[in-house]
Amino acid sequence: VIALLSPGADAELVRSELARLGLWASLERTADGASVMFVIAPHSAHCDVSAIQKIRGVQSVASSASPHPKLDAQGSVVDVAGIRFGGDAPVLIAGPCSVESESRIFKIAEAVAAAGGSFLRGGAFKPRTSPYAFDGHGAPALRWLRAAADAVGLRVVTEVMSENDVALVGEHADLLQVGSRNMQNYALLRAIGKSRRPVLLKRAMSATIEEWLASAEHLLVHGAASVVLCERGIKGFDTTTRNLIDLGAVALLSQVHRVPVIVDPSHATGRRDLILPLSLAAIAAGASGLCVEAHDDPGAALSDGPQALTLDALAPLSRSIAGVWNATHGAL
Amino acid sequence: VIALLSPGADAELVRSELARLGLWASLERTADGASVMFVIAPHSAHCDVSAIQKIRGVQSVASSASPHPKLDAQGSVVDVAGIRFGGDAPVLIAGPCSVESESRIFKIAEAVAAAGGSFLRGGAFKPRTSPYAFDGHGAPALRWLRAAADAVGLRVVTEVMSENDVALVGEHADLLQVGSRNMQNYALLRAIGKSRRPVLLKRAMSATIEEWLASAEHLLVHGAASVVLCERGIKGFDTTTRNLIDLGAVALLSQVHRVPVIVDPSHATGRRDLILPLSLAAIAAGASGLCVEAHDDPGAALSDGPQALTLDALAPLSRSIAGVWNATHGAL
Amino acid sequence: VIALLSPGADAELVRSELARLGLWASLERTADGASVMFVIAPHSAHCDVSAIQKIRGVQSVASSASPHPKLDAQGSVVDVAGIRFGGDAPVLIAGPCSVESESRIFKIAEAVAAAGGSFLRGGAFKPRTSPYAFDGHGAPALRWLRAAADAVGLRVVTEVMSENDVALVGEHADLLQVGSRNMQNYALLRAIGKSRRPVLLKRAMSATIEEWLASAEHLLVHGAASVVLCERGIKGFDTTTRNLIDLGAVALLSQVHRVPVIVDPSHATGRRDLILPLSLAAIAAGASGLCVEAHDDPGAALSDGPQALTLDALAPLSRSIAGVWNATHGAL
Amino acid sequence: VIALLSPGADAELVRSELARLGLWASLERTADGASVMFVIAPHSAHCDVSAIQKIRGVQSVASSASPHPKLDAQGSVVDVAGIRFGGDAPVLIAGPCSVESESRIFKIAEAVAAAGGSFLRGGAFKPRTSPYAFDGHGAPALRWLRAAADAVGLRVVTEVMSENDVALVGEHADLLQVGSRNMQNYALLRAIGKSRRPVLLKRAMSATIEEWLASAEHLLVHGAASVVLCERGIKGFDTTTRNLIDLGAVALLSQVHRVPVIVDPSHATGRRDLILPLSLAAIAAGASGLCVEAHDDPGAALSDGPQALTLDALAPLSRSIAGVWNATHGAL
Repeated sequence: VIALLSPGADAELVRSELARLGLWASLERTADGASVMFVIAPHSAHCDVSAIQKIRGVQSVASSASPHPKLDAQGSVVDVAGIRFGGDAPVLIAGPCSVESESRIFKIAEAVAAAGGSFLRGGAFKPRTSPYAFDGHGAPALRWLRAAADAVGLRVVTEVMSENDVALVGEHADLLQVGSRNMQNYALLRAIGKSRRPVLLKRAMSATIEEWLASAEHLLVHGAASVVLCERGIKGFDTTTRNLIDLGAVALLSQVHRVPVIVDPSHATGRRDLILPLSLAAIAAGASGLCVEAHDDPGAALSDGPQALTLDALAPLSRSIAGVWNATHGAL
Repeated sequence: VIALLSPGADAELVRSELARLGLWASLERTADGASVMFVIAPHSAHCDVSAIQKIRGVQSVASSASPHPKLDAQGSVVDVAGIRFGGDAPVLIAGPCSVESESRIFKIAEAVAAAGGSFLRGGAFKPRTSPYAFDGHGAPALRWLRAAADAVGLRVVTEVMSENDVALVGEHADLLQVGSRNMQNYALLRAIGKSRRPVLLKRAMSATIEEWLASAEHLLVHGAASVVLCERGIKGFDTTTRNLIDLGAVALLSQVHRVPVIVDPSHATGRRDLILPLSLAAIAAGASGLCVEAHDDPGAALSDGPQALTLDALAPLSRSIAGVWNATHGAL
Repeated sequence: VIALLSPGADAELVRSELARLGLWASLERTADGASVMFVIAPHSAHCDVSAIQKIRGVQSVASSASPHPKLDAQGSVVDVAGIRFGGDAPVLIAGPCSVESESRIFKIAEAVAAAGGSFLRGGAFKPRTSPYAFDGHGAPALRWLRAAADAVGLRVVTEVMSENDVALVGEHADLLQVGSRNMQNYALLRAIGKSRRPVLLKRAMSATIEEWLASAEHLLVHGAASVVLCERGIKGFDTTTRNLIDLGAVALLSQVHRVPVIVDPSHATGRRDLILPLSLAAIAAGASGLCVEAHDDPGAALSDGPQALTLDALAPLSRSIAGVWNATHGAL
Repeated sequence: VIALLSPGADAELVRSELARLGLWASLERTADGASVMFVIAPHSAHCDVSAIQKIRGVQSVASSASPHPKLDAQGSVVDVAGIRFGGDAPVLIAGPCSVESESRIFKIAEAVAAAGGSFLRGGAFKPRTSPYAFDGHGAPALRWLRAAADAVGLRVVTEVMSENDVALVGEHADLLQVGSRNMQNYALLRAIGKSRRPVLLKRAMSATIEEWLASAEHLLVHGAASVVLCERGIKGFDTTTRNLIDLGAVALLSQVHRVPVIVDPSHATGRRDLILPLSLAAIAAGASGLCVEAHDDPGAALSDGPQALTLDALAPLSRSIAGVWNATHGAL
């Protein structure tokens, strides 16, 4: 955003009014001094162009069109199979990293439902850094997942990794997840969009917020019913917290962009001992919900056991996030 | 931490038990297979060596000495002039970026006190990226700051930038702040340590948690009475939130290391519109308090106006963080 | 890698010998002191386990298996359609960002060949951050690209974005490119691997070197004929050089891992004025070749015009990199 | 930089001309369409305002004043005690991490001189992350360093860590080094500037190029005779190369800003096996010289032994960089 000054305007008075609005501004002028303008920095507070326009000494305000009009039009509340993201209660998604067996996923589903969860998660197709690692049970796992969720009244969210699996996953899931590594896999975004289903879009490890929103726009342009964002930690330099949970992005998305965003504290930190405090912090920052990994026996898990919560931790987590939600949603 | 296996132990059973404890482990073995061991990854949950030692198949556990024994001995509560960081209430520090005039700092101090703040902050010596920017009023500002705080019963925290100013600042401040840019200025850490005063140590822009703790150890080795840490945002790649607030680090420090840590949401984001949600999130993540910039007239501020809260925002902020504290401190 | 010490060994003497080998080591010991060991840090110089084993006081050395055995077996030279990456001359790949028309690609191909290039590049399918941007002419562009290359004796490299395009692209290209955004798109890696073709694998924006090598291993496990790596800049925090060219990674891959790696200075920096010096630096660091964007009329380009070299810059670039190659390859 | 368009100008034609100049531009316009302008992105090629001004359809060009006029005025060549940085030959600085004894520094100085080095480096005061690590022999080390350099005709560069040591170090050194951790220690910059000596300014671990240049400006404003910059690796996320050598910054500074900049490959990577290729790459990218750590017996070094070159590696390194210099300086 650029504020052009009227001829003869006092630039320092204008800068002062911009600061009052929470706007950081740098002055640029033509060599002959005929044109003077302030460029508003991207980390400024949100501000309507009309408020800047009203400042005495500002002649006009130039801005660029939003690069994601469809996302802007989506609104701050998204309903997926009757569950509202961005509504008046936090949404809890929980389940194992991967769907390991029919009996196990039924057991976990029961605990998720009992704790007040809304969605059961679990991978049928797993992205794994190593080609030698377990990568999911595929189609049968999808059926077990759906059956387990149905048995206890939960919805299903699970990841789609291949364009060719979109239809299959779409048969079993209420919400299709795009994983972090595929956030800019445009062929996949297109195929999922065309399925006209709601999508949970995880942030890539080093995506800027605008790159993330642009991927959401890809989904909507191709037909996705709706998009919910999921922050899961970005690449950082400190190995003791594995990834870097970016709650500034969550606050910006929820409070300024008004887009529903949830947080996955399990992948964001990898540490079971930090999942509770970071879940609470996520809700306080404005997240609409959480996606956490839980397992009935983390020691036996085929993947991600060390970061999985045990099932008895789910109900206390659920109660705690309700408490924080109530304490903060008057303020936010 | 390294777990050495007993001869003939089943490595996968041991890995399973490690996962149960929240520990990520990678297997290393000698070429002849005589020695097999697991190296525990740094992003594992905290775990006593004795718990690993008890796993069937683990012969012994090797670990390194803590690089910061004095900080470990400090404990989780630090008392500064009667105010307890890490105690049973959040500590609110507020005030302007720089102390601009005697009357202004008195006005701000009143509002900070009325909102329930404990410390008045304000810069007499300001680190500025540009050599042409306003860098503080120096000694007179220290006197105004002290007098304003005393008038309303607040404590004082302010930054020391030079070894040669330690005594002067120490005369006026209860808590000496080391700024982000000086976190590894060892000459300054030594001089401040020798003053035997309590210190607020801000994290450098790209310091790992261990580098930060090592700087705290420098202070304590040289005699500092105590050290409170302050997270203020690290360098990130997204310009819309300026810095990257690292609440994973806050959770780790408060929940695992048990070191008092506060958060400065003003510098962490630079955006006035994100200070409230990130303040709430910081408390929920385990912060002992907050340090926020506030000004009676942000448009007139000599520095950092766009990110300063107005004075009437302080009381609602204070109430909100109390609410989050109460909602979360049972859980944490 | 872990060096276990013999009972009674002098740890400081062992540390000294490790330092002599270029190894950074941290000491860990069991509580009873019975076992003492050094953990070798990952940024140590490359070293055979056998050299550590020979140090007096070292009882045994434990290490983990390589996570990418197939890549290790590939060797340092890869032949693609008669062109050797990692051989005794630098490989120059050049061409436009996207294949815009038949006549234009023929014109560019001529200049690439005249400058001594080996491969013609050009996008038929383009990954674009915005869904509203031009994303390539698709199948016709592939035919134009092939015909233009054939007319002047060049090979063809072009990106595959969809699993469903692998066969089509494979008909026209000698080398299939996996773009940065798809480095961990495992469905695509699998599909490309199955085609049994050689692959150019670009590094993801925040991939560690080991994650990058793991993706190469995915390709080889599924059948890829060979893999050449391409560094194209990682995410950084300084907007004046857009991405951050990581020539430390190039040096490590070429000098230590002995994997053929080329550099794309066009995407690494986005700046036309830095392409020459960074091309020279890439070759000096050990790169086997370069991939640069060139266009006959950058002002008319449908994408990436500002970073495209003009065609008359190709021959001087080619001569310069030959000069650096000759000056450095005796030393490396 | 902002290009304001004439009323009725064809924006796409202007964008095309900007691309021809290597400029990335985003369009902003007022709501009424009366004012249309292009904001030039920071990763654009360098371009004179006058060239933009000449584009048909551009009415005027606005820009901001340089934040570092004194550095801009310094020029691209800096003479320090008769040695020219940015001149027609690369400058080699070499020596141990710390000055350990009189006899040792004499021995090393001889090898540096024999290899064609110009400056002897070595720490008398060492910044160390741990307060328990060896931090230099202080004043005696300065005397040994000076004597050793004088004996063989070398100049001296060494780090100043304290404002109170500026005079002392200034007595013995030709070039005063500001370390990475002190790049924004403004009290130190002021004290060193006042000494009116030439300064070697290392880049902070996460400093943007503009922040780095601003610190150089601080030095010059306070009186420094001249400033030479030193890239030594920034914070990255890959532990196998420790720090991230930013040769894009080196190319930008040397080719566009025309400021003398050298590279320290020893700290940039920590790996002895990558120092040669990265030294060559640094020179090819446009560096005016190198600063490398060398030791007669790395196993006995009190600090940084694993990354130190042995003395017999210096002459081959020196010859290799001369070769690269000759091969590239016609092209650059």
